[in-house]
Amino acid sequence: MALSEQSLPYVRAISPYQPGKPITELAREMGLAVDRIVKLASNENPLGMSPKARAAVLAAIDDLARYPDQFALLQALAERSGLDAGQIVLGNGSNDVLDLVARVFLAPGRSAVFAQYAFAVYPLATLAAGAEPIAVAARDYGHDPAAMRAAIRADTRVLWIANPNNPTGTFLPAAVLRDFIVSLPRDVVVVLDEAYNEYLPPAERVETSSWLADLPNLVITRTFSKIYGLAGLRIGYALASPAIADLLNRVRQPFNCNNLALAAARAALDDHRFVADSYALNRAGMEQIVAGLKRLGLTHIPSHGNFVSFRLADAARTNEKLLRQGVIVRPIAGYGLPDWLRVTIGSEGENARFLAALEGAL
Amino acid sequence: MALSEQSLPYVRAISPYQPGKPITELAREMGLAVDRIVKLASNENPLGMSPKARAAVLAAIDDLARYPDQFALLQALAERSGLDAGQIVLGNGSNDVLDLVARVFLAPGRSAVFAQYAFAVYPLATLAAGAEPIAVAARDYGHDPAAMRAAIRADTRVLWIANPNNPTGTFLPAAVLRDFIVSLPRDVVVVLDEAYNEYLPPAERVETSSWLADLPNLVITRTFSKIYGLAGLRIGYALASPAIADLLNRVRQPFNCNNLALAAARAALDDHRFVADSYALNRAGMEQIVAGLKRLGLTHIPSHGNFVSFRLADAARTNEKLLRQGVIVRPIAGYGLPDWLRVTIGSEGENARFLAALEGAL
Repeated sequence: MALSEQSLPYVRAISPYQPGKPITELAREMGLAVDRIVKLASNENPLGMSPKARAAVLAAIDDLARYPDQFALLQALAERSGLDAGQIVLGNGSNDVLDLVARVFLAPGRSAVFAQYAFAVYPLATLAAGAEPIAVAARDYGHDPAAMRAAIRADTRVLWIANPNNPTGTFLPAAVLRDFIVSLPRDVVVVLDEAYNEYLPPAERVETSSWLADLPNLVITRTFSKIYGLAGLRIGYALASPAIADLLNRVRQPFNCNNLALAAARAALDDHRFVADSYALNRAGMEQIVAGLKRLGLTHIPSHGNFVSFRLADAARTNEKLLRQGVIVRPIAGYGLPDWLRVTIGSEGENARFLAALEGAL
Repeated sequence: MALSEQSLPYVRAISPYQPGKPITELAREMGLAVDRIVKLASNENPLGMSPKARAAVLAAIDDLARYPDQFALLQALAERSGLDAGQIVLGNGSNDVLDLVARVFLAPGRSAVFAQYAFAVYPLATLAAGAEPIAVAARDYGHDPAAMRAAIRADTRVLWIANPNNPTGTFLPAAVLRDFIVSLPRDVVVVLDEAYNEYLPPAERVETSSWLADLPNLVITRTFSKIYGLAGLRIGYALASPAIADLLNRVRQPFNCNNLALAAARAALDDHRFVADSYALNRAGMEQIVAGLKRLGLTHIPSHGNFVSFRLADAARTNEKLLRQGVIVRPIAGYGLPDWLRVTIGSEGENARFLAALEGAL
C-alpha cells in the first residue's frame, strides 16, 4: 500500500486554496516588468501599511533572534475591546484562528454550515478537520439567515458567517445579524468573520464584541491584513468567551505570531489617521470602479468591502486578456461564480489602469 | 450542556506548551530592568540574526501590505538541497510543519511513537490530532532505537525523532540513525527533526536529504530559529517525498509564512560566515559552561546542541534563585526531568553571568 494511503482520507480529498496570482509570478509568466503590473486580486490595501506600523517594525528589527511574546498586543486589544486578555486569541492571520476553531469543534461525524459564495477557507478548514461542509444557497448573492438556520443539523457544531461577505461584498445590517445569531442553537459555535468590517460606513458599524456578554457561542474574527495593510506580516485575532478562547489556545502553536507582526499590529491599532485615509480612498475608488463598470454596461454586486464582483459573458477569457495587459484580478469560479471576476479597489491610478484594460478586453 | 463540552474531548485534555519565560515578563514580575536580564531559556542565538538577513528584512519592508509569495525561498531551498521544490513544505517555524504531519497522518484510533524526554511539541501535536502518544523509555537520556522500533503498533502512523535531541542534547550518529530508519515499517512516517543539526561538528554532519531517495516515509524538518537566529520571524521547513509534501500542503494555511521571514531566510541561507561564527561561539561557550558546571560539581548530559542540561538537588528552587538574579534558564520538569535545568549557550558574558548566578544560588 502506498504510504500516502495512510494519510487521512479527508485530507486527500482537499483541493488547496487558490491564492491571487502574485505580481512576481505574472512577471515571470508573461515576461512583464514588475512595475508595469497592477495587482487588484487579494483585497490588499493600496496605501500599503500604516507609517506607525512601519516605524514599529523598524524599532523591533534588532530582536528577531528571540521567540515572540504576545503580551503587549493582547493587552492593547483587551483595552481596545473592553474584553479580558483571556478572551483574545491571536492568529497568524485570521485564517489561523478560523483553523483553530475547526480543530477544536470539528471532526468526522460533525458538520459546519456556511453560505454559498462564502470565503474559501470555511470549507477548507471544515474539510481539513474531517467534518462535512454544508453550503446553504445564497439570497441575492448574500447570506440567507432563515435558510442557514434551517440547514443546521444535530451534528452541526460550527456556523461560519462573514459580514461583509467575501467575495460578494454583501452585508447583513447589525440588527438582522444579531437577531439571526440569537435565534441559533447555543451549542453551535458562530464564527463571525469581520475581516472587512472597517470598510463599513460609521452608521453601519457596530462593536460586536459587546455581543459576547450574552452570546457565549459567538467567536468574532478580525484581521490586520485588510484596512491595516499588514497582509504580508500575518496577524489576526479572535474575540470569544474565556472558555472558547482557552480551548483555541490549546491547539494554537505557542509562537504562531511573529515579533514584527505583533509590533506592527499594536502600532497600527493607534494609527486612526491611516485607517481613515484608507477608508476614504476605498469609498472614492469604489465610486470610480462602479461608475466604470456601469459605463461598460456590466452588472456588479453592490459591495460593502474593498472589492467588487462583476459579471461577464466570458470571465475566464476576459481574465486572460487582463493578465496579458498586466492587470491581475481574481477569478471566482472556485466560489461557484464562474461568470464573475472580483476586483480589489486600488489607488485612483490602479483603478483607471484596470478600467482601461477591461474596456480593451471586452 | 456547556458549549465547551461540544469541543473535542482530546482537545480539552491538552495542557498548553510552556515557553521559556520572556525577558519582559520577568522584568514585570521582578521589577528588574530589561537590560539586567540574561535569557538562556529558549536556545536562541546570542549573536542575534545574520546581517544579510537583517538587510533582506529592511529591503522587503515596503511590501508588507501584499500577501506573501513562497516562490523564491522554495527555489533557494531546492537548489541547496538538490531536491525538487515540490518536495519542500515551508512552515511558520518548524513547529508548523510538525503540526501538518500530525494533521495529515494522525487521528483518533492512531498512535505516534517518540522518546521519553523528547521535544514537547511531539506529544502536543499528537494529542491535538486526537491520536495516542507512545513515549518510549530513554537510554542514557537519548533515543533507544530498538525500544522505539518495538513500541510501534499496528495503528502507529508517525515516529518523531530529533537529532540532536532537545532538551537532552543527545545524538545518534548518522549511520546508526539511518540503519534505524531503514529497519522501520515503511507505512510509518518518520519525522526527523534536525533543528539543532547545524551545531554538529562537520565530521558528524550528514546531508540526510539524500536519504529521501530510498526512504519515501522520511520527513526531515529544519528551522531558521536556531543557528540562523530568526526565531522571532517564524520560519522552518520540511523535506519529504513529493507525495507527502503534496499532502502537507493540503492542510497548510496558504499564507503560513510571512514576507519578512521568507526574505530573511533566503538571505540567511547564504550567510555562511554568520553560521560559522555562530557555530564557533557555541563551541567555545559550551566548553565554558561545561567547565563551570564541573567546577560546581554538577552532573550534565553531554550535549550536541546549543544548550546543556544539568542536575541539581532542588532544580525548582535553584531556578527561582536564578530568576531573582535576572537569569532565565529552562526548567524541564514538563519533560519528565524535574531534577534538571537546561541552559542555552549564550555569549561569553552571558555564560559568565549564568555561572556566577548559579554559584550564588547553590
